[in-house]
Amino acid sequence: MSERTHRGFHVDRRTLLAGGAAGAALLAPGAALAQTRRVRDTAAIRRAAEAGYAASIERIQNWIRFPTIAAEGLNIEEGADYMARLATEAGFTRVRKVATGGVPAVFGILDSGAPRTVGIYFMYDVKQYNPSEWASPPLEARIIDHPLGRAIRGRGAVNQKGPEGAFLAALHAFHASGRRLPVNLVLLAEGEEEIGSPNFRNVLRDPEVLAAMRRAEGVIIPFAQQNPNGAATINLGAKGIIELELVASGERWGRGPARDVHSSLKAQVDSPVWHLVQALNTLVADGGNTPAIDGWFERVRPLTARERALIAEAARSRPEEDAKRSLGVQRWIDDLPWQQALERLVSQPTVNIEGLVAGYTGPGGMTILPARGVAKLDLRLVPNMTVADSLAKLRAHLERRGFGDIEINMSGGYDPTETAEDSRVIRAQQAVFTRNNIAFSLFPRLAGSWPGYVFTGDPLRLPAGQFGLGTGGGAHAPDEFFVIEPTNPRVAGLLQQTMGYVDFLYEMAAAR
Amino acid sequence: MSERTHRGFHVDRRTLLAGGAAGAALLAPGAALAQTRRVRDTAAIRRAAEAGYAASIERIQNWIRFPTIAAEGLNIEEGADYMARLATEAGFTRVRKVATGGVPAVFGILDSGAPRTVGIYFMYDVKQYNPSEWASPPLEARIIDHPLGRAIRGRGAVNQKGPEGAFLAALHAFHASGRRLPVNLVLLAEGEEEIGSPNFRNVLRDPEVLAAMRRAEGVIIPFAQQNPNGAATINLGAKGIIELELVASGERWGRGPARDVHSSLKAQVDSPVWHLVQALNTLVADGGNTPAIDGWFERVRPLTARERALIAEAARSRPEEDAKRSLGVQRWIDDLPWQQALERLVSQPTVNIEGLVAGYTGPGGMTILPARGVAKLDLRLVPNMTVADSLAKLRAHLERRGFGDIEINMSGGYDPTETAEDSRVIRAQQAVFTRNNIAFSLFPRLAGSWPGYVFTGDPLRLPAGQFGLGTGGGAHAPDEFFVIEPTNPRVAGLLQQTMGYVDFLYEMAAAR
Repeated sequence: MSERTHRGFHVDRRTLLAGGAAGAALLAPGAALAQTRRVRDTAAIRRAAEAGYAASIERIQNWIRFPTIAAEGLNIEEGADYMARLATEAGFTRVRKVATGGVPAVFGILDSGAPRTVGIYFMYDVKQYNPSEWASPPLEARIIDHPLGRAIRGRGAVNQKGPEGAFLAALHAFHASGRRLPVNLVLLAEGEEEIGSPNFRNVLRDPEVLAAMRRAEGVIIPFAQQNPNGAATINLGAKGIIELELVASGERWGRGPARDVHSSLKAQVDSPVWHLVQALNTLVADGGNTPAIDGWFERVRPLTARERALIAEAARSRPEEDAKRSLGVQRWIDDLPWQQALERLVSQPTVNIEGLVAGYTGPGGMTILPARGVAKLDLRLVPNMTVADSLAKLRAHLERRGFGDIEINMSGGYDPTETAEDSRVIRAQQAVFTRNNIAFSLFPRLAGSWPGYVFTGDPLRLPAGQFGLGTGGGAHAPDEFFVIEPTNPRVAGLLQQTMGYVDFLYEMAAAR
Repeated sequence: MSERTHRGFHVDRRTLLAGGAAGAALLAPGAALAQTRRVRDTAAIRRAAEAGYAASIERIQNWIRFPTIAAEGLNIEEGADYMARLATEAGFTRVRKVATGGVPAVFGILDSGAPRTVGIYFMYDVKQYNPSEWASPPLEARIIDHPLGRAIRGRGAVNQKGPEGAFLAALHAFHASGRRLPVNLVLLAEGEEEIGSPNFRNVLRDPEVLAAMRRAEGVIIPFAQQNPNGAATINLGAKGIIELELVASGERWGRGPARDVHSSLKAQVDSPVWHLVQALNTLVADGGNTPAIDGWFERVRPLTARERALIAEAARSRPEEDAKRSLGVQRWIDDLPWQQALERLVSQPTVNIEGLVAGYTGPGGMTILPARGVAKLDLRLVPNMTVADSLAKLRAHLERRGFGDIEINMSGGYDPTETAEDSRVIRAQQAVFTRNNIAFSLFPRLAGSWPGYVFTGDPLRLPAGQFGLGTGGGAHAPDEFFVIEPTNPRVAGLLQQTMGYVDFLYEMAAAR
């Protein structure tokens, strides 16, 4: 074990003790008593986690070396089997693959005889990658010295095998220390998160899965939630998303050419690409900033006073100039001030063009009238919009305007999620951050999306969100990394992350 | 020489004799007399052309083997030198390269002491190619058996080295038979036609070139003008064109991101791609079929009664179903009947989208907000529109609507051309088709474009057009070919094409 690692341990211990005191001060007297007992418990668990530290790193590395990629059909059954083995080794029982109609899910329970049950959502698939863009092979899982600290570099390192590996390490530490978990667990792991979870919801059709999930207090996905500066954000929900292609073609339209023809024929022949551009144009107003799909705002719930207050707080604590610089943005929409720009980020549904492809796309020009055009869109949804209702509205909108021929190929999507600020999951997260002396803020809603609607929506209606200490970067990009021994003492390393999950499970047991 | 070639010759002779008789019957008495003398002359020239037939084929093949590609900077000076040598060998004098600011032009004169002078426009460059898409190497110039007959397959075979080679063969035949040309010639060859002739017009700044061109009666580019069924169309002009890219970027706009960012930020950040789509949408009305650029129709000259009559004739002689089938089109714009669809083809300026490229263009989706979008447009112009005026109108239109940040990158363009039906060039063409018993029709305007405005515009104001017998296909596409010995006796082979140019020069000399 390197000097660096030892230094990391010292920092961890110090932080833990300081955080424990701060956490106790904030909690009610009864909770403080319960916490004292937990602190005693975590010392033994921590020793076990330290002993298992090298194995934890190796577990993450080996998992990275065996990627499941739904878009490429890579290691579908094999990846599910691997996930099942990881779950079994971590103490889950009744572990099995669950058919969803797509890539199988993996289910398991960990019954510790506790009164409460917590749901754990894993994704075992990873995003595609192009090895030529990487500084080291994306499946090597090389340990590197990153400016942010010692890190594992590889596809899936931070999204999501690193954080999930830290969670598994916590379960191994419970077991090795001979401690029972303070809560029961239900695990649901999916293997097609990276293609938009098109079938994951079907897992709830399995009676055993549904019955087990109904017992859960809430659900988390392990997540490296800290910024490189150490601060963490707890999102009280996430926007939904519909990802789709609009495809206009002469063949389907019955107008325009069936294949690309000479562009001089535009005077005589309709253009499927103009048809597409005109259809697109009806979807938005205000320069593309406001969706104009018929009825789009019918279900949009305005921000509450509490949400506005949280945004105002975020506007004060997050430097606007940092945000602008990191995005390469000079002005927000409508030249809004920072706080209103954040309100817009949280509250507004969007219609975004991810990509356009039509006709000749190479250098210079080519005098053709293309037979086909494709717009790739993503539509972000806010509460109380739903994917099904929104898709129906889009379809009706296009049909009403003479664009009914345009194909809508939805590739994935989720409903938005909301989790109450006073739910146990959110209160437990805050307690862990406080205990670990990690600055955090609440934010009404992640502008991004995740398949948490499976848990927050009918029939479960559970609180659900991301949770975890630590940091990393490069998700979906080259040189993805997960920091295991950070240079910044405000950021948790792998061991502190592991203990953060231990703390979280105790907080879930204790929270009233 | 193959049996096929011999059969080709017999057909040519028969066609020539039959055509000669038909032509004489149609011409005025004086013209018939002049023509008799020319028939005597052409017999000797024809024998020389037959003797030079193999050399003519080889000349075309060798030329194909030495491509000039302006877009790739391939064989720029060398191709001009090659062109100059071809001109010199064919009898041109004062042959030299003329600087244009781009790929050099080649100039030469052939002074036969005749009262009249004819301008000849050549292009010596060819379109790019992808060898992997070809059935034989595009520079091999292989002789193949095509369904339409024995043919040369190679890049530039029909566009334009084959027809130009047939014209050169005519000059060689004059020389070999000891006959003086009935007209003087001025040759102007350009080497960047395939990138839109961005500099060719500058050739007229050369005093010797301008003076020589001022003496011309008119200008032709050698062209395989027959359809595979044998019929030919004489176009009395061509539309102009502007080819350009509209580029929207966050960087230039000062709004939106400087590089691609996560698509969830659409709620907070402007989208350069939506900006582009909205700009595009202002350029057209009626589903993309009518340009809506401010003032776009100010200079548009309506069809004349004669033009309408020619179109009505074309509507009768050209099968609508053939046109629809070959284009893969079920309906014309606005469900117009055939004649009105042809009127639209001839008379309407267009704004066409050749291509769209923005953001993620691969399979499936990618949740990004792209920093940049590009639309590749071609705008066809009709008389009396001009490139300069139209480009200024487009710029003003976009600026007026808040799209002044969108870059307009024009890559090439020409003004429209018009050539009077009673000009000698057009009358001579008709006489040659008649003499060769080739069905032809007059059409008001080619919907495509060529750089003939250099000749038809100020200061020369000459009649100009495409002319030549024969057929081919695959211009700008793989497996381009030029038929030298057709299976259909109504189509001219290389020898008859060569004699067609001989006839044309005599007709230019004789026409009143």
